[in-house]
Amino acid sequence: MESTHIVQAFDKDLEDIEALLLEMGGQVESLLADATKALVRSDRELGDMVRKNDGRVDILEQKINEKAVRLLALRQPMAEDLRIIVAIMKVSANLERMGDYAKNIAKRSSVLALTAPPGSATSTLKRMSDMVQSMISDVLDAFIRRDIDSADDILHRDEEIDLIHNALFRELLTYMMEDPRKITSCTHLLFIAKNIERAGDHTTAIAEQVHYLVSGKLPHEQRSKRDRTSTMIVELNNKNKKATD
Amino acid sequence: MESTHIVQAFDKDLEDIEALLLEMGGQVESLLADATKALVRSDRELGDMVRKNDGRVDILEQKINEKAVRLLALRQPMAEDLRIIVAIMKVSANLERMGDYAKNIAKRSSVLALTAPPGSATSTLKRMSDMVQSMISDVLDAFIRRDIDSADDILHRDEEIDLIHNALFRELLTYMMEDPRKITSCTHLLFIAKNIERAGDHTTAIAEQVHYLVSGKLPHEQRSKRDRTSTMIVELNNKNKKATD
Repeated sequence: MESTHIVQAFDKDLEDIEALLLEMGGQVESLLADATKALVRSDRELGDMVRKNDGRVDILEQKINEKAVRLLALRQPMAEDLRIIVAIMKVSANLERMGDYAKNIAKRSSVLALTAPPGSATSTLKRMSDMVQSMISDVLDAFIRRDIDSADDILHRDEEIDLIHNALFRELLTYMMEDPRKITSCTHLLFIAKNIERAGDHTTAIAEQVHYLVSGKLPHEQRSKRDRTSTMIVELNNKNKKATD
Repeated sequence: MESTHIVQAFDKDLEDIEALLLEMGGQVESLLADATKALVRSDRELGDMVRKNDGRVDILEQKINEKAVRLLALRQPMAEDLRIIVAIMKVSANLERMGDYAKNIAKRSSVLALTAPPGSATSTLKRMSDMVQSMISDVLDAFIRRDIDSADDILHRDEEIDLIHNALFRELLTYMMEDPRKITSCTHLLFIAKNIERAGDHTTAIAEQVHYLVSGKLPHEQRSKRDRTSTMIVELNNKNKKATD
């Protein structure tokens, strides 16, 4: 009977931590949504709020880590249970990083509120951000339900983000070339695009954790990264080319 | 006697993992050195080598993680020993990320080899990279020796990196405004600078782990981030300003 008690106690502790993880995911999602709204609407007040609220995400990460370490010490879980706890710590680190990206977007949006960024770029950024927000919520659901198919689906959705990012990189460099007064604002937009693209990458890192938890292996095929911005050359005369990849 | 045996076995296992961590740190350091050399010398072959060798860093991270989880399962360490294992996993994640930054620098250097980047910028980047390389080796030493003073010193050294990064950001945007043909290359240099600055941030994250391991607390004062690039406005007429911070 006692071992049943221990198992139940472990499951209860695990549920508590997973609830915190979902809470953290929800907070990161709304930080990202608000940062994007601040950008699109040139709303500096909302941007400032995002920058303040990022601290709450950090506190949640610390709380999850402490609970996870306590669970390791008290219950001394073996095999799969141990793997789940380790995965939870990794996932919370991914979420914390995504919160940082949202905060950085909010920071840059306060500059962009003063410089009138090109409208089509911000609407593309909003589209990317919306996609990443739903990936965050879906990948955490997949984590809780140990749903390998839904996790693998995230990997494909991230490829779409990469493709949009490639086109936007090219577009922003072209704007800069056409009008040097847009160089500061477009630079910040380039970094915002990169932040969102990286947030997408972190959802795939979580998806890989799910795959690993369920199957004991990392996803079979190496994820095909579609992001080409690091090797992209954009030229003034519109003869764009790519150096190598 | 048996408990002495267990303690010794744990210490031996821990030493093995810490040796792997140092090996990983050494590899990341030389990836960063090589990526920077590839950039400075427009050496595309060396850049390609860095991109291939990053995989070795990832394999080391996986190995460290597996050994750490096995150590948790077999020895079921308590209190401080448990905290060390968790910290090791976090440090190896930091190092893995730094390896990714080196790889991204190498990628971008292959573009820059074709576009003749402004010389003064690459020498500034080399200076930043050299500083980060020595921070990697020093912070890992501090980790192994649980040396809190040396760890805290890293936090201050990172502030210098941030200051150089601010000046370089401004310089690169000015180049872009003066000559639109430099926009592609300067954009890649901006991202390389950001990569190095972020690598510096990861050394401070490791330093904070050391502080926490030794004192049980995170560093008392919030680290003063000096990076201002996210809120910087550079204007054509050289009246530079800062939006907010």
